[in-house]
Amino acid sequence: MSLVRVHNLGVSIDGFATGEGQTLEAPFGHAGSRLLDWMIATKSFSAMHGLAEGTDGVDNAYAARYFAGVGAEIMGRNKFTPLRGAWPDEEWRGWWGDEPPFHTPVFVLTHHPRPSLEMEGGTVFHFVDASPQEALDMAREAAGDLDVRVGGGPTVVRDFLAADLVDHLHVAVVPIVLGRGVRLWDGLEGMEERFEVEAVSSPSGVTHVTFDRRR
Amino acid sequence: MSLVRVHNLGVSIDGFATGEGQTLEAPFGHAGSRLLDWMIATKSFSAMHGLAEGTDGVDNAYAARYFAGVGAEIMGRNKFTPLRGAWPDEEWRGWWGDEPPFHTPVFVLTHHPRPSLEMEGGTVFHFVDASPQEALDMAREAAGDLDVRVGGGPTVVRDFLAADLVDHLHVAVVPIVLGRGVRLWDGLEGMEERFEVEAVSSPSGVTHVTFDRRR
Repeated sequence: MSLVRVHNLGVSIDGFATGEGQTLEAPFGHAGSRLLDWMIATKSFSAMHGLAEGTDGVDNAYAARYFAGVGAEIMGRNKFTPLRGAWPDEEWRGWWGDEPPFHTPVFVLTHHPRPSLEMEGGTVFHFVDASPQEALDMAREAAGDLDVRVGGGPTVVRDFLAADLVDHLHVAVVPIVLGRGVRLWDGLEGMEERFEVEAVSSPSGVTHVTFDRRR
Repeated sequence: MSLVRVHNLGVSIDGFATGEGQTLEAPFGHAGSRLLDWMIATKSFSAMHGLAEGTDGVDNAYAARYFAGVGAEIMGRNKFTPLRGAWPDEEWRGWWGDEPPFHTPVFVLTHHPRPSLEMEGGTVFHFVDASPQEALDMAREAAGDLDVRVGGGPTVVRDFLAADLVDHLHVAVVPIVLGRGVRLWDGLEGMEERFEVEAVSSPSGVTHVTFDRRR
């Protein structure tokens, strides 16, 4: 059975996985890039943009796992766009330009479906009004033998955790007090009991915490 | 100038530093001992009880710092007792038996002062209705050249951080989702900017995070 995985999710020490006030200019609201600076600095992230620079220590070891063996992604509407409600038109094609970094089918959870969107490099956005389990069934079908990544935002990750659909969760705890935004952990009391938990700090200041389903 | 220090404060990954529902039998409410098991397991903690057992790795290195160079403690009423409101009598003498582990003057913040309480081993509890700054002035006076420890609970630590009175904060982030209790980080947005921050994970699973005032 393929796994459901979450990777590289930055979470502040007070539990916020994105900031307040998302706009076109600020995808993570007042958090800016602070929850993912550790990842942007890695070699794996640079390579996505065709660059050879970047850190190659423990942060990169974790960051690189994002790419391996994933056949489909599920994301929330708010990861795809800062727009809310009905689509004004179909001009918005995501934050990522003509060739998004997913290279697989991507199921975007939204109450406002629209036609699928085929991008360069293998990414196809499907817009589905579905429960977590329904979306997962579609993504598994699309992924074949490969794993499904739940790509965020925090609300979607929380919903999948609450429905006990996640096999592997990797968060990077960033030692900042964000104060406002979307909380990751709400409603998940005791979830660690279902997982093997491991924590490793990095010289960058973040701590990688993995929750791997007990088998 | 003597420093104001907080040590060994266990905080869940969702930001709670104690659980919900404190009672005589459950000083940390539904959290039980989960936020301090790492510390109870150390050699330093065992030594307080005259025992020679315990871990002697990174957890103990941090735990041991609790004891060094402290001349007075400040604590909240809820660390001293599960009782609320006016004292029914003066029978309650703290959770710690005849010889509490403080061995210094201890200033207990309460809206209900009562006579000071001299215990064995040098601990003297003073009950004061004071602001954080006023309590700190008293504690500094009592501590002489030594440092002042803010001993908790989380509300008091938060109040002292909000008033920018803390020079060194050591939290142990425990990778459990506590879900309910008293949040440490509320109202402290951006506090990391005032500190050098360092994180070190331990094989016990906790991550020691220190906030050391920039000088």
